Amino acid sequence: MCEGVKMKLGIFRRVTLVLLILVLLSSAAFASSLQLTKDAKNLETYISHPAQLAAAREKLAKLEAKTGKKPNVVILLVDDMGWGDPGVYGGGSAIGAPTPVMDRLAYSGLKLTSAYSQPTCTPTRASLLTGRLPIRHGLYRPPIFGEKGGISDEITLASLLSEVGYRTAIFGKWHLGSDAPQQPQNKGFDESITMYEGSPKFYVVTDCKEKMSEVYHDPELKAYFNRIKKLSPGVMKANKGEKAELALEINWDTIPSLDQKFADYSIDFINRMAKQDKPFLLYHCFTKVHEPSVPSKEFEGKSPAKQPFHDCLMEVDAIVGRIIRTLKENKLEENTLVFLLSDNGPDEDEFPDMGHTPFRGAKGSTWDGGVRVPAILWWPGMIEPMRTSDGLFDFTDIFNTVLSIAGAQDKLPTDRYIDGVDQTSFLLTDNGESNRSAVFMYTLEKLTAVRWRGWKKHLWIAEIGDGTYAGGIGTKDDAKIIRTPGLNVMNLYIDNKERKSIGQKKAWTTPFFGRMIKKHRQSLKDYPPKKAIVTMQ
Amino acid sequence: MCEGVKMKLGIFRRVTLVLLILVLLSSAAFASSLQLTKDAKNLETYISHPAQLAAAREKLAKLEAKTGKKPNVVILLVDDMGWGDPGVYGGGSAIGAPTPVMDRLAYSGLKLTSAYSQPTCTPTRASLLTGRLPIRHGLYRPPIFGEKGGISDEITLASLLSEVGYRTAIFGKWHLGSDAPQQPQNKGFDESITMYEGSPKFYVVTDCKEKMSEVYHDPELKAYFNRIKKLSPGVMKANKGEKAELALEINWDTIPSLDQKFADYSIDFINRMAKQDKPFLLYHCFTKVHEPSVPSKEFEGKSPAKQPFHDCLMEVDAIVGRIIRTLKENKLEENTLVFLLSDNGPDEDEFPDMGHTPFRGAKGSTWDGGVRVPAILWWPGMIEPMRTSDGLFDFTDIFNTVLSIAGAQDKLPTDRYIDGVDQTSFLLTDNGESNRSAVFMYTLEKLTAVRWRGWKKHLWIAEIGDGTYAGGIGTKDDAKIIRTPGLNVMNLYIDNKERKSIGQKKAWTTPFFGRMIKKHRQSLKDYPPKKAIVTMQ
Repeated sequence: MCEGVKMKLGIFRRVTLVLLILVLLSSAAFASSLQLTKDAKNLETYISHPAQLAAAREKLAKLEAKTGKKPNVVILLVDDMGWGDPGVYGGGSAIGAPTPVMDRLAYSGLKLTSAYSQPTCTPTRASLLTGRLPIRHGLYRPPIFGEKGGISDEITLASLLSEVGYRTAIFGKWHLGSDAPQQPQNKGFDESITMYEGSPKFYVVTDCKEKMSEVYHDPELKAYFNRIKKLSPGVMKANKGEKAELALEINWDTIPSLDQKFADYSIDFINRMAKQDKPFLLYHCFTKVHEPSVPSKEFEGKSPAKQPFHDCLMEVDAIVGRIIRTLKENKLEENTLVFLLSDNGPDEDEFPDMGHTPFRGAKGSTWDGGVRVPAILWWPGMIEPMRTSDGLFDFTDIFNTVLSIAGAQDKLPTDRYIDGVDQTSFLLTDNGESNRSAVFMYTLEKLTAVRWRGWKKHLWIAEIGDGTYAGGIGTKDDAKIIRTPGLNVMNLYIDNKERKSIGQKKAWTTPFFGRMIKKHRQSLKDYPPKKAIVTMQ
Repeated sequence: MCEGVKMKLGIFRRVTLVLLILVLLSSAAFASSLQLTKDAKNLETYISHPAQLAAAREKLAKLEAKTGKKPNVVILLVDDMGWGDPGVYGGGSAIGAPTPVMDRLAYSGLKLTSAYSQPTCTPTRASLLTGRLPIRHGLYRPPIFGEKGGISDEITLASLLSEVGYRTAIFGKWHLGSDAPQQPQNKGFDESITMYEGSPKFYVVTDCKEKMSEVYHDPELKAYFNRIKKLSPGVMKANKGEKAELALEINWDTIPSLDQKFADYSIDFINRMAKQDKPFLLYHCFTKVHEPSVPSKEFEGKSPAKQPFHDCLMEVDAIVGRIIRTLKENKLEENTLVFLLSDNGPDEDEFPDMGHTPFRGAKGSTWDGGVRVPAILWWPGMIEPMRTSDGLFDFTDIFNTVLSIAGAQDKLPTDRYIDGVDQTSFLLTDNGESNRSAVFMYTLEKLTAVRWRGWKKHLWIAEIGDGTYAGGIGTKDDAKIIRTPGLNVMNLYIDNKERKSIGQKKAWTTPFFGRMIKKHRQSLKDYPPKKAIVTMQ
């Protein structure tokens, strides 16, 4: 063999070697850039951060050694509050409704800027309590006054925490079913004083001369609603396993101060629990700032905006203040993780006196305006103050995270798919990174969008005909859902209003999104979806 | 006269009396609701708050007794940063560009949510330094590389502060004229190292192969710009009255770190001033985050968004940190009022890697997106921490307010109209209320909108043809300005995106706006407007 051929072969070998290394490197880079771990077939993949997790575990262990018990958890869930409503997210005094309490909570805790709920009330609430997406728990839309359906065969966070010695309570709006099997006292809550329906307005539907004159003046409809009202006459009270009893009628006299009443119950619960050894879960669900926007007397006209929604927002802020103050008075803040959340974006049907969002769309859509919501976490000593993070957080993660913090990871169901991931290490370590790689967004039963890091791929887009609004679907008659051609990818860091897809420029994301969507669809084959709402017979 | 007639007369008298009282009360209410005071024919009317003012004056007197001198003033003016860019206004990590320094500045100071600049760079800068609207100082749009015109016959804040013993300095972008009479050393600044033009890009206009290929490949245009460049070759340095000398060439090598250089100058100035008895005015004007968005090496790709604009925003934040740190190291924070501002809204022509605003419109328009900008005030001990206010604030107010704080109120010009009002009492008292009743917004020479309290009346509206964008006029070819029918009034508290006028419902505001507009137009008759830009000959 002459020297020339040898050299050529040598070059070939070197080129092959270089190519091989490049291929290996690129697939390793692909793998490491997604860093996905899966602990079991029925559990969602996640990004593993072992060092971060060890640090968080150590922090929790130290606290438990000091306090001698597991941490308490308080979830404050506001209704229909937009991302742009609290001052710390750009609302507050800018919208004529200062929110000093929420702002200070964020300043002394963690403000999440990419936390995702579901597009409407019930789906969010069920996902939070089950760790499962609506397509799995079946409540992919809110059941309306007169419809049956709820979370009867679902396993809730409250049940699992009860099993590890927590006392669990819910005060406020339930909206996860009104039949006995789906009532909170049968879904894991030791104590409950709740409103089953979505809005106090349903309880006065026959007494809404101005706002619902088409029902008010129709004897047949009036009779129907009066019959329904007998089944769910107002705020219901029940301890675990008991039959629910009427605690308070809901009518125009009681509606304005309903949330102050629920706060009284929560405050009483905290005061009682402070004297006990058991840790607790308090799930406090506001009926405000959902319409009909009726503030209590004290807050009427109090907002600089001098508009009912804005008065109600200030009232919610003040109530958050009452609850936080009670925790502090009882010296519980050191051992209590507080979540302040909203269940979905602003309700555009109430334009113009409605919630605010800087994003496109509103309640009901998977534009960010519908699902990207305020989420503040507060835990002095455990969560770094003045922290803000854009790490992805889905409301299903609350399920896994709270179980993890309560030391109840082994209670995770094995017979059904759990979409949540444990975010303990993300939340409790300074500069912690999210353990979630993607958020899957559904409009009813349809997967309409996926967020991965800063990008969002729209599979279907909701549009409003008249162009008056920024794009929310809400309950608008002329809303349509349009299939996108597959390259509708927006970078939310640079186009946070989701104004224009720059498809071809983002074509490189296709295999990444493709892989995630394929895995997600496979999980739906392995664990088939269900429906849980029975419409009027 | 029979009893009946007497009674009737008695009723008449009483009815007349009641009517008279009602009329008096209503006019008194009208007057008191506007509470307008005017100190001189050439000064803007304002809302007087005597108790608030006395409290602020006392605070200032106490501080002066302690420090033995007048307060220093630092104005940090960012270029083209949107309301939605800093984290504390809803941007930051939410847009993949955390701004921890600005956020902490706001947390420990005052965040204004209704501060108004002019729609573009030069008008804002001239208004800030003169206390006058563009229609009066004549710089109603930016002069572009090759055009003459500036603030030569205007009286600046720097000149007046010099008269009362301040040392004044400007580092960064000037953009108020490049001819000798309009250069900073001839407009009141003791020290200046500045860039005269609007963007570093103009200095490399013949060297922009990719971004400006139509100039790059055209020998005639290239020759024109090379000729212009000789007149203004780069960053110019001059002490008061001196002839300006080239301090630093502006080219692709120096552009990335231009703002770090300017920060070096400002830091050196602060360090020197800390050893002197004189109080100082430092006017630090960033060239970022104006396009061409070229971060310094250290910040390249540093933002989570991994986009040049976002890298630059993080760099600006870090530079603010360098300057604040210098103030602290010199223990100057107690006696230094710091303003952190932006000169106008985001530049939509740079879509998608541009600034953010939750509002409609962008740079160039009087939609709030163009003129409502971040404004943070920081003065430990003098301004309440964690304060946020929606009180109206116009950039012309900086002129009057700084003069007032420096004890130089008697230096206010008497030969020309001053649009600013003294906001000292608003800014320095806890829960202080704004002294400004209305903001007059101009697009070029046209009064296009007026804000009063939470309402905004549009006289003319800027619209973009293709509907792709939210409504900014920018420099879009298909933008048109449309005369509104006079009832185009939006409530910015409830419709902060200015989506829909609810005219008839706001018809009651007509006499209020009418009166303000009439007074404003009268002031323009008394003090006729002028033009100050001479286009290429």
